[in-house]
Amino acid sequence: MHQFTRKLRRRASALAVLLAAFLAPPVVRSAPAASTVEQWDVFEIELQGPSNGNPFLDVRLTGVFTNGARTVEIPGFYDGDGVYRIRFMPDSTGEWRYETKSNRWPLTKNSGVFTVAPPSKGNRGPVRVFNTYHFAYADGTPYKPVGTTCYSWTHRSGEMEELTLKTLAGSPFNKLRMAVFPQAHGIKDMPPPRFPYAGAPPRDWDFTRFNPEFFRHLEKRVGQLRDLGIECDLILFHPYDDDVEWGFETMDAETDDRYLRYVVARLGAYRNIWWSMGNEYDFLRTKTMADWDRYFQVVQASDPYDHLRSIHNGRILYNNTHPWVTHASIQNGMATEEAGRAELYRDVYRKPIVYDELKYEGDHELRWAQLSGPEMVHRFWSCTVAGTYGGHSEFFADAKDVVWLGQGGVLKGESPPRLAFLRKILEDAPAEGIEPIDLWQDPRIGGRAGEYYLMYFGREAPTSWPFEFYRNGLADGMQFKVEIIDTWNMTITPVEGVFTTKRKDRYSFAERDGRAVELPGKPYTAIRVRYAGGTKPAPSVTAPIEP
Amino acid sequence: MHQFTRKLRRRASALAVLLAAFLAPPVVRSAPAASTVEQWDVFEIELQGPSNGNPFLDVRLTGVFTNGARTVEIPGFYDGDGVYRIRFMPDSTGEWRYETKSNRWPLTKNSGVFTVAPPSKGNRGPVRVFNTYHFAYADGTPYKPVGTTCYSWTHRSGEMEELTLKTLAGSPFNKLRMAVFPQAHGIKDMPPPRFPYAGAPPRDWDFTRFNPEFFRHLEKRVGQLRDLGIECDLILFHPYDDDVEWGFETMDAETDDRYLRYVVARLGAYRNIWWSMGNEYDFLRTKTMADWDRYFQVVQASDPYDHLRSIHNGRILYNNTHPWVTHASIQNGMATEEAGRAELYRDVYRKPIVYDELKYEGDHELRWAQLSGPEMVHRFWSCTVAGTYGGHSEFFADAKDVVWLGQGGVLKGESPPRLAFLRKILEDAPAEGIEPIDLWQDPRIGGRAGEYYLMYFGREAPTSWPFEFYRNGLADGMQFKVEIIDTWNMTITPVEGVFTTKRKDRYSFAERDGRAVELPGKPYTAIRVRYAGGTKPAPSVTAPIEP
Repeated sequence: MHQFTRKLRRRASALAVLLAAFLAPPVVRSAPAASTVEQWDVFEIELQGPSNGNPFLDVRLTGVFTNGARTVEIPGFYDGDGVYRIRFMPDSTGEWRYETKSNRWPLTKNSGVFTVAPPSKGNRGPVRVFNTYHFAYADGTPYKPVGTTCYSWTHRSGEMEELTLKTLAGSPFNKLRMAVFPQAHGIKDMPPPRFPYAGAPPRDWDFTRFNPEFFRHLEKRVGQLRDLGIECDLILFHPYDDDVEWGFETMDAETDDRYLRYVVARLGAYRNIWWSMGNEYDFLRTKTMADWDRYFQVVQASDPYDHLRSIHNGRILYNNTHPWVTHASIQNGMATEEAGRAELYRDVYRKPIVYDELKYEGDHELRWAQLSGPEMVHRFWSCTVAGTYGGHSEFFADAKDVVWLGQGGVLKGESPPRLAFLRKILEDAPAEGIEPIDLWQDPRIGGRAGEYYLMYFGREAPTSWPFEFYRNGLADGMQFKVEIIDTWNMTITPVEGVFTTKRKDRYSFAERDGRAVELPGKPYTAIRVRYAGGTKPAPSVTAPIEP
Repeated sequence: MHQFTRKLRRRASALAVLLAAFLAPPVVRSAPAASTVEQWDVFEIELQGPSNGNPFLDVRLTGVFTNGARTVEIPGFYDGDGVYRIRFMPDSTGEWRYETKSNRWPLTKNSGVFTVAPPSKGNRGPVRVFNTYHFAYADGTPYKPVGTTCYSWTHRSGEMEELTLKTLAGSPFNKLRMAVFPQAHGIKDMPPPRFPYAGAPPRDWDFTRFNPEFFRHLEKRVGQLRDLGIECDLILFHPYDDDVEWGFETMDAETDDRYLRYVVARLGAYRNIWWSMGNEYDFLRTKTMADWDRYFQVVQASDPYDHLRSIHNGRILYNNTHPWVTHASIQNGMATEEAGRAELYRDVYRKPIVYDELKYEGDHELRWAQLSGPEMVHRFWSCTVAGTYGGHSEFFADAKDVVWLGQGGVLKGESPPRLAFLRKILEDAPAEGIEPIDLWQDPRIGGRAGEYYLMYFGREAPTSWPFEFYRNGLADGMQFKVEIIDTWNMTITPVEGVFTTKRKDRYSFAERDGRAVELPGKPYTAIRVRYAGGTKPAPSVTAPIEP
């Protein structure tokens, strides 16, 4: 293009804008719903913009937010009918300003000021990795995941979805794994009422146009989980499309990436969102390992809040050492049968380990769906003392083949009350999280050396335990209170008196008078031992060099 | 420098070379010892060159070897007294040519032709990774490591070193972990007779000059191991210098890297060499993780033969998913106490797993040096059925504090004959290696589905086992022979008759007539089950998608 022509065009374009400003009807701009929002809540900007062409493809929109000290650029999204939105989750209080940027005139230079108030009760912000192997809310409160899974509960009728929410409200679960895309199998009587793309099922989709109504529904449910104090571990891809049903498993890379950016733009401002790239990702054979790596990178790049990111395996573990993985979301039931196994993934990944599938409580002939209640609870306890976290779901099919794992509804298993009991114990445990006390020696004992010990005997049924702990954190004359925990019957029985430490040998301290802890000789017994007085040793700067 | 001057100098230099060629005494060049060498043996070129200045720093020398089809460039090294060497391990038979390259005239353009003959008996070439989790020699023969460790055996007297070799010759061990640098502790009566650097102990070293005599001695010992059929897993750095004794732990990065290149140039042509970057690397607190990554990269770049590379941990596992790690060399005794634990590292690393330290047989108060013989053997068997490999050493101190682990000498423990028995069983096992039969379900059974099963009951003492295997590789009517193995008493007792398979349920096949295998009710029992006839199922292209 000739230089002069270009200059001319630029001038013509500037003129058009000036004309538009004076002659065109004023751009309709909804003001933000409120000019005050609490920290870690959603501040939403709604804008009117073009609805011609394909706004999902053609329009770029971001909001630049600043509180003076820090500036972040937040992607917006098209919500249909000429409406555009930008959602922002402020992470500090005070006055914030914003200004929009777009490749379309009506969406540019919209600006405003709003105030971020302190969070209200129950709002602790997003969950982050804490102390390498654990989690905490942004306000510093420890978060101990006790999660469950309902893949497709948001693809049901309103009535059933309300029932699921009611069940969750009365359950011990503070994390829910659920999928964006519906599952194809087991829903003949209940086809999903809405789909993420414009078009019609089964396969007449316009993959260049999202269905905003689908996502508004999803967001409503995510918000309801947030209000119940439940983290939403959102599964972005899964292999449950029965190969060909809807085709969400075989979209091309550009479509996959656009989908990810759209989901993140819509949901990133929800403080309870976690991103799970895939469920049983390796069973989704239409994807390559490079695809999964890229999904992580796309999500990480699109999400200004850096929400937790993981991927859940089938039979092939993802390389969770990659820097874009915040925690390992593991399926391996065998690994949770005893603490010595459960602990091993910690050392290789050096990240929090969540056994999101350790098999399901259920009565099915499939062996991943037939854990007894006691076995489910046993596995959670094994994970717990290993310094890792379990994950629940159940598979008791009703006459219509509805199972909690797939569709939600009601819980029928025996484990949930026991998991509520465990969650209480976890929440009473040290804020730093439960760590192996004597790494690679006695994996049955976790806790915090010299302060708190939780020991789980699993399937053993000992009648006595010789009060004895690894030397770290101990000195002669420290006093401890001991409680015996029946993990199934949910009782905590204090042992009378205190136990006073005395050096026993190079490695361990025992009770001064050789007093042992008498135990009931039943499986699934745990003991909790807490510091109750006496002089602690000076903390050593480095751990002793000794394997 | 003025251009003309430079030109003049270049001319003068060319003239000098011409003059040298005519006037100087002819350069003394020893011809290679033989013009025929067998495949995977060492072809050595000896050259006379400059001894002035510091040849270790100043002289660059490589040999370019070609057989017409393939060309490789091999680094040479200075061996003291004006002697330079290039060692080449040919990997294919036929005629090879070489030509030397150097930054010093007498070392350039030396060329020759030699013939590579087929390998003689017992020479199977270097060991490589095979079938993801296993090893094989370059000629395809499976290699099943049954290794031991003697860190400092090459830093002893000739007499004691000969004794160690004699012990090894009568032992089951086909791999030996040993260190280049001596250990500082426990050798008061026996200081090392030689050191890798010019200078004098304890700390008067010239780190820019190697001590060729030290390395010639090391090479002699590596060659003797090779002749005994023993792989040399050479530890390049370790933390056993007692902080300050000799200073090999605190050399700067340039010195470390030059050391690595020198060792690789000298020893890379030995087919039985494996490189272990460090032992208990994380206890060497003077190094950073970036140092260890770099060591791997330096070794990989210097070694044209791509020998096996690993690193051995103390308490912090190295990220063995890095592409430059060929196999995981693990210390974690707890992980080898049962197969379910031992298996877990396979899935995360997807490489061979060698538990080079699973603790040591011994009678010491330190708990890493007090395994009983039965416990050592038990751990090897647990590793074996998990599709991983154990590693032995022992710690029985004599009056002079000599232990096999440190100094070599004689073996005193009870495990070696049992490890010889296990090695025989491993060598009779399928060439592809032992794999989990039913991943993450029953880790006690390894083998090759439908052909070979090795099941180990560990500390259990069952009196019967209901002949029952996971469905893969099985069909109705297949016949199997069963043997009962007493792993401690080293007996193999065939069970009479054959066991014929019949589908039992969704997951398993059992014996047609419900016949069980009667067992002796003793711990440390294994069974070996081998295919003996009947129609095998058609192999399925993909494993069923089911966790």
